[in-house]
Amino acid sequence: MSKNLTKRGEDYSKWYNELVVKAELAENSGVRGCMVIKPYGYAIWEKMQAELDRMFKETGHVNAYFPLFVPRSFFEAEEKNAEGFAKECAVVTHYRLKADPNEKGKLMVDPEAKLEEELVVRPTSEAIIWNTYKNWIQSYRDLPILINQWANVVRWEMRTRLFLRTAEFLWQEGHTAHATKAEAIEEAEKMMNVYAEFAENFMCVPVIKGFKTESERFAGADETYCIEALMQDGKALQAGTSHFLGQNFSKAFDVKFASKEGTLDYVWATSWGVSTRLMGALIMTHSDDNGLVLPPKLAPIQVVIVPIYKGEEQLEAVRQKVLPLINELKKRGISVKLDDRDTQKPGFKFNEYELKGVPVRLAVGQRDLENNTFEVARRDTLTKETISGDVIIAHIEKLLVDIQENIYKKALDYRNSHITEVDSYDEFKEVLETKGGFISAHWDGTPETEAAIQEETKATIRCIPLDVKEEKGVCIFSGKPSTKRVLFAKAY
Amino acid sequence: MSKNLTKRGEDYSKWYNELVVKAELAENSGVRGCMVIKPYGYAIWEKMQAELDRMFKETGHVNAYFPLFVPRSFFEAEEKNAEGFAKECAVVTHYRLKADPNEKGKLMVDPEAKLEEELVVRPTSEAIIWNTYKNWIQSYRDLPILINQWANVVRWEMRTRLFLRTAEFLWQEGHTAHATKAEAIEEAEKMMNVYAEFAENFMCVPVIKGFKTESERFAGADETYCIEALMQDGKALQAGTSHFLGQNFSKAFDVKFASKEGTLDYVWATSWGVSTRLMGALIMTHSDDNGLVLPPKLAPIQVVIVPIYKGEEQLEAVRQKVLPLINELKKRGISVKLDDRDTQKPGFKFNEYELKGVPVRLAVGQRDLENNTFEVARRDTLTKETISGDVIIAHIEKLLVDIQENIYKKALDYRNSHITEVDSYDEFKEVLETKGGFISAHWDGTPETEAAIQEETKATIRCIPLDVKEEKGVCIFSGKPSTKRVLFAKAY
Repeated sequence: MSKNLTKRGEDYSKWYNELVVKAELAENSGVRGCMVIKPYGYAIWEKMQAELDRMFKETGHVNAYFPLFVPRSFFEAEEKNAEGFAKECAVVTHYRLKADPNEKGKLMVDPEAKLEEELVVRPTSEAIIWNTYKNWIQSYRDLPILINQWANVVRWEMRTRLFLRTAEFLWQEGHTAHATKAEAIEEAEKMMNVYAEFAENFMCVPVIKGFKTESERFAGADETYCIEALMQDGKALQAGTSHFLGQNFSKAFDVKFASKEGTLDYVWATSWGVSTRLMGALIMTHSDDNGLVLPPKLAPIQVVIVPIYKGEEQLEAVRQKVLPLINELKKRGISVKLDDRDTQKPGFKFNEYELKGVPVRLAVGQRDLENNTFEVARRDTLTKETISGDVIIAHIEKLLVDIQENIYKKALDYRNSHITEVDSYDEFKEVLETKGGFISAHWDGTPETEAAIQEETKATIRCIPLDVKEEKGVCIFSGKPSTKRVLFAKAY
Repeated sequence: MSKNLTKRGEDYSKWYNELVVKAELAENSGVRGCMVIKPYGYAIWEKMQAELDRMFKETGHVNAYFPLFVPRSFFEAEEKNAEGFAKECAVVTHYRLKADPNEKGKLMVDPEAKLEEELVVRPTSEAIIWNTYKNWIQSYRDLPILINQWANVVRWEMRTRLFLRTAEFLWQEGHTAHATKAEAIEEAEKMMNVYAEFAENFMCVPVIKGFKTESERFAGADETYCIEALMQDGKALQAGTSHFLGQNFSKAFDVKFASKEGTLDYVWATSWGVSTRLMGALIMTHSDDNGLVLPPKLAPIQVVIVPIYKGEEQLEAVRQKVLPLINELKKRGISVKLDDRDTQKPGFKFNEYELKGVPVRLAVGQRDLENNTFEVARRDTLTKETISGDVIIAHIEKLLVDIQENIYKKALDYRNSHITEVDSYDEFKEVLETKGGFISAHWDGTPETEAAIQEETKATIRCIPLDVKEEKGVCIFSGKPSTKRVLFAKAY
């Protein structure tokens, strides 16, 4: 397999698009803005889902499923939320097609099958869920509700990119209801922490936890917590958000509960989500000019074995040699594939597994059989060594751990070396254009300044870091006083 | 918890609807025909998904994801399929809402955001998938493609019932592509067998495998294989279908491949699916007037422990007693819940877990503590016995196996005693009205007779059993010659 992959240094964006398609992760479909997630890409997503689902359940959440459609009247109920999503939503207006009398074999919308009330394909489910919670919540005994849903959602984005921004995407959305404000805030923070732990421990993507500014907040939230990652081109990527929704939705849908003290109060809410966008973050954080680099914990194939042979007899000897190894690895929960296709040469296979980011590749030739050795190549460093069959299992186990750690460390080093403190707007613009990354700068706290900086530089405030230090300063743009630095970046 | 459940004998249909809601499996939503699957119901569905997914993967399939929307022009391509689904589909015509100038706070469809081509919310995905496969298949080396998708689909049913028939439902749909007709037929049969194995071994629902008649076939299939189950009210329920699609979709989407022999041939196809409808089959096959009865293999909670106590000190003694037991059961992969809520009395809890179908219930009171015993109740037979703590683990393990076997056997006995051979139309009508169940009768093979019988009796041909014997006879309706019996029933 010849890779013919554009180099990152030449055109990062083109490299990404090509890589997603060539590694068979996803492709554009015949439907505007919608992607097909191909089996190899979906296998990675399934691994991500499994870990996240486990983490949600360990933190007390259960799964459920709510309707795809949001009737217009529910959609309207929470004003800011409606405003935020009305501009780009798919609207179902009819429930039937009929034969087109003017063109044989063609169908047309049946004007007699018009819905009385339009249905919006969910762009997010707060409205439909809070309309349901209304019936579930009467007393403090009904709280908290800690529900998650795995679902597809649709936002009619005009400019789409595989995984990063698509009209339909897959995600999970948690929707919780609480008796007190403090408990809801604690939940929103907890889920941000779960996301950060997942990003760092499984995806090997270091993230900065923070708050969004008012203008970057989720439509309908009082506070949005986020985790922000940095891609290799110096652009930031929002990898997950967790919202403290206050009482906005309980007021919009009139959801009150009888408290222990006998008062009737509005319920407090959170929602939180991550999506197939994480696939984009995963790809862009680690991959190189040879293709994907996957963290072992999320790789569908962790070890691939490529036989080097001439003729069926030699191939069979390799098969016999590796069969016990394969069984032993599987027993230890390591996924392993023997690629004994005789339609492709080893060099082609090497390229293919490099492109697909398989963490460990073993090659076994005739000399290896004689010497009881394996040629072991690791994808992250592209290095090879010869390992004795006596220690191969332990070596592979250690290697998978090493690779997981190494690619995290590499990403962390890159990220840490791309957080630059600046104290003037000129410096800000220079760093943004030359180095990119996160820029830590004082800001006067106004949406006007935020918008003006974005207008001129395309940089946005990615977050106000959770661990930000109080520090006297002046806004780089307005010169007005500021008490803390925020993180700016250009972003996906 | 007072159950107040309508009895099956009084009104089976009402009993079902009440049970689904009271056992907190699902409820109707604010969206016409769409349901909310509640956490307890969804937990059962997740267990079903996990087993099915494992079985699909063991038979060589991989998961992927295709778009929710089918552009009208794709939808039209396979004529019969289009005809079958056009009558009841949700159609997206616009991609934006805007503020309604006539009413503050209201939104309306933005007439300027009309789609050039309408999008149908997938009622099934053959069209969108074969439009994609077209680009994936050039040569026999690209075959077979063995893909499954877990997804939501929408069919605008006018009369809906929770799980059994809803406008939106969850399902999996397999879509495979093959080089030969024989291989495609083998695949379709294999998946019918996978479904049957799942229904019988996990759901404890005995099924009859068969072919659908032409008029009951999937729109666009050359042959539909099915598994048919029988509910306690004598009505049949189609629990899964697997379709041999011939070359209908490859011709509609022009999908050809270069064969080994160098010819250019159309690809052969199958599709197969089961849905949340299986939840309805599961509920109706086993449950009784006290509530749900769940097979242990699919029960979210397999064992519940209810302490009988007065005061915190006694409760704490029970907790100390059962803690090692809980840990030991969990180690063995048995899900167990200790219900130590002090807001409800034991009797309330007993009722609740009966209603929710928990297979095994332990009660532990002060005398049990003194005697090292447990009161063990099994849900399927509603019997109780006192078991020594020395053998409790082994007893529970055996009980779970016994219950799984017992409810299957009970359902099988019922089903087998409700297959009646008849040789005249009068007898047919009498059995149908008095006893129900499957009626095995000769049929002349024409859609006209099939339709006439349905018109008069509401019974349909559920299937032509796979293992049907050749046998000379005459059609009960027309008196014309027939070579085999088929199975009729009223159906869900």
